[in-house]
Amino acid sequence: MTYRPLDEHGLKALLGDLPDLRARLGGAQEAWRVSEVGDGNLNLVFIVEGADDALIVKQALPHLRIVGESWPLPLARAWYEQMALKAQAEAAPGLLPKIHFADREMALTVMEYLRPHVIVRKHMIAGVELPRFADDVARFLAQTLFRLSPLGCGAAAHKARVEAFAPNVELCRITEDLVFTDPYRVAKLNRWTSPQLDDLAATVRADSELKRAAQERKFQFLTCAQALIHGDLHTGSIMATVDDTRVIDPEFGFVGPMGFDIGAMLGNLLLAYFSQEGHETSPGERDLYRVWLLDQLVHVWNGFAEQFLALWRAESNHPELQGGECFEAELFADAEGQASLEASRQAFLRTLFEDSLAFAGAKMIRRVFGLAHVADLESITNSGRRAVCETRAVALARTLLVTPRQFSSIEDVADAAALVSAVR
Amino acid sequence: MTYRPLDEHGLKALLGDLPDLRARLGGAQEAWRVSEVGDGNLNLVFIVEGADDALIVKQALPHLRIVGESWPLPLARAWYEQMALKAQAEAAPGLLPKIHFADREMALTVMEYLRPHVIVRKHMIAGVELPRFADDVARFLAQTLFRLSPLGCGAAAHKARVEAFAPNVELCRITEDLVFTDPYRVAKLNRWTSPQLDDLAATVRADSELKRAAQERKFQFLTCAQALIHGDLHTGSIMATVDDTRVIDPEFGFVGPMGFDIGAMLGNLLLAYFSQEGHETSPGERDLYRVWLLDQLVHVWNGFAEQFLALWRAESNHPELQGGECFEAELFADAEGQASLEASRQAFLRTLFEDSLAFAGAKMIRRVFGLAHVADLESITNSGRRAVCETRAVALARTLLVTPRQFSSIEDVADAAALVSAVR
Repeated sequence: MTYRPLDEHGLKALLGDLPDLRARLGGAQEAWRVSEVGDGNLNLVFIVEGADDALIVKQALPHLRIVGESWPLPLARAWYEQMALKAQAEAAPGLLPKIHFADREMALTVMEYLRPHVIVRKHMIAGVELPRFADDVARFLAQTLFRLSPLGCGAAAHKARVEAFAPNVELCRITEDLVFTDPYRVAKLNRWTSPQLDDLAATVRADSELKRAAQERKFQFLTCAQALIHGDLHTGSIMATVDDTRVIDPEFGFVGPMGFDIGAMLGNLLLAYFSQEGHETSPGERDLYRVWLLDQLVHVWNGFAEQFLALWRAESNHPELQGGECFEAELFADAEGQASLEASRQAFLRTLFEDSLAFAGAKMIRRVFGLAHVADLESITNSGRRAVCETRAVALARTLLVTPRQFSSIEDVADAAALVSAVR
Repeated sequence: MTYRPLDEHGLKALLGDLPDLRARLGGAQEAWRVSEVGDGNLNLVFIVEGADDALIVKQALPHLRIVGESWPLPLARAWYEQMALKAQAEAAPGLLPKIHFADREMALTVMEYLRPHVIVRKHMIAGVELPRFADDVARFLAQTLFRLSPLGCGAAAHKARVEAFAPNVELCRITEDLVFTDPYRVAKLNRWTSPQLDDLAATVRADSELKRAAQERKFQFLTCAQALIHGDLHTGSIMATVDDTRVIDPEFGFVGPMGFDIGAMLGNLLLAYFSQEGHETSPGERDLYRVWLLDQLVHVWNGFAEQFLALWRAESNHPELQGGECFEAELFADAEGQASLEASRQAFLRTLFEDSLAFAGAKMIRRVFGLAHVADLESITNSGRRAVCETRAVALARTLLVTPRQFSSIEDVADAAALVSAVR
């Protein structure tokens, strides 16, 4: 199929020509209801409802929607997304949408319609508690980052992914520019809550220590090929109900630093936390929810660490599993070897913790001063109240990015967030 | 051309059909003299001498020569070598052999015949001082590792190299197995000076701290995509005269950790150093040469560091050069920014120094206990004398691999080598 952006008519014709999907939707093709619901920046997203079932159809557009046709974006990103969805679904069963059909040329993916799932960011703006969220996200992170790294698979499989995703250059460049560089310089597309944050924006642009840290993390983002990562794992990339969680939209996927996905999640939870006061209709209304959010922060990291270590202990070199490439069990068979290997695992997790905090800080700062903001903060219509939330977020973010070592645990980070938040 | 291993007749026919090479060699095709001189483990190497000029023809064999046809090796490695030779020649002009012809299918490369160049390892066994060696190797390391990393080029160019070299899986696996794993376990292909080193081999296999360090470096080798590296940069991969130095044989090339190339060189210089006493025909005969070797060790690292930093200061974001991806000049324009950027560069070099020492240690240990040894030590026919040299090498190597942080400078490493060497 040659690429053409779909409209309702074209979409119905395409789905009607696919017997499986035609049968799945059910009823007369003319009666299918199509609505375009894309609220992202990059894609068309359709809901197609038939008599029996409904589907989601996602199609990449050849330009960045938020900016317009002046910012072209390769359609190939749909291909990277399709590959990532497949690999992640194998690594983390049950945590991704089911794919019914994918076409590389059309940059099109047909998926199950997740109902009544809502984007987690929207839940968090509304103050909705999600009992499964932290466990599921921790499992997604642990299973994908372990199993799609050379700790959990063979070198050849790892390098095949490195090769397959290396050409996803343009999407990675968006991150490289918008996360690591633009917020720290005068850039045409930057924006922030003005005039309240004008001084803080200038302070950030003049903060050499902060800029150094951001650029060091940019180099890490460019050169650290630890695992296939989602690449954009914020709370807007997760859909959830109270009892189900699904990760969507891995079009930024490539083999990169594990800490980038973890940091994206932690950073967005902190942004959700700092934004709560702005959503209150009466003082203290969100106090309990703020406590819940910090609990999620703590549980996402601790749950990830626990499950990642458990996978490492269980799957690495397991004779019936694919087995990883490093730390072969044979080398560490005796008690002293086991202790040494466990020390190595703990050291790995500690470095990954610091990486994650630093990336979290970078992701937070870019959402305050860069091109793309988050609804958690943007939906606070009173700019003065929004600026207070943003100022606190930036204070913690700077510390996370510049001196992640000062935090001995994720509980420390939660305490620091509460402390910053209490500043009046 | 379909692959077939060449013999004299086939080689003359092939070169005779290439007008440029036919003219370059000169004289009657029948009169060309062909000799096969491959002393490596992986390839056929021919010298072809015509009336006017001589050429080197290198052709990959489909198996590992040292073991025999039971160990198949992909012919595609010739393609990675051709790509690496081209990239490195552009990055480090004058330090590689000139390529006259390359054929991917035939796994064949026709190069200039370097005369009167000798493999540096042979020079060092013979005790020959090479006045240009350290400077040239330092320049090769600095220019290739800087310019073929995202510090010295664009992200798209870097990622294109990551993609192109990622399938060089089998050659990388040789390193992964033979350098990082086999010396630390009972492996069929291991060998060492026996019985003198039997106990030390057992000690190495039982040394949990050492095995942990080796496996952590294996993970780094598998996941750190900093720069296009040579992948096998020992003293046998360099040919030199007193006034010219050329790096050959980058068939292990891939985008990996910078410290692996630097470490290979430092480790092999240390092996040359520790082997000297075994070559003496009278006590103290090689004392001056040993001093010279440690000087080279010091000058290779210090020269590398100086030139790498100079390139970083000069080329990164230079408006007329391609420019790197990180640490954009615009971000660090004022005095404070310059100081912060310089601190970042120094921190980068310090980490790279420790990486290099650790990889050096791993490379030394594998040459004593693994499959492939080095002529520096193997040519010491008295096994008792050889064992003394090897024991000292392993003592320093362990420290380099386990605690590289304890060395504050390369001069410290040289002092430690001299100290270990004085143990009687």
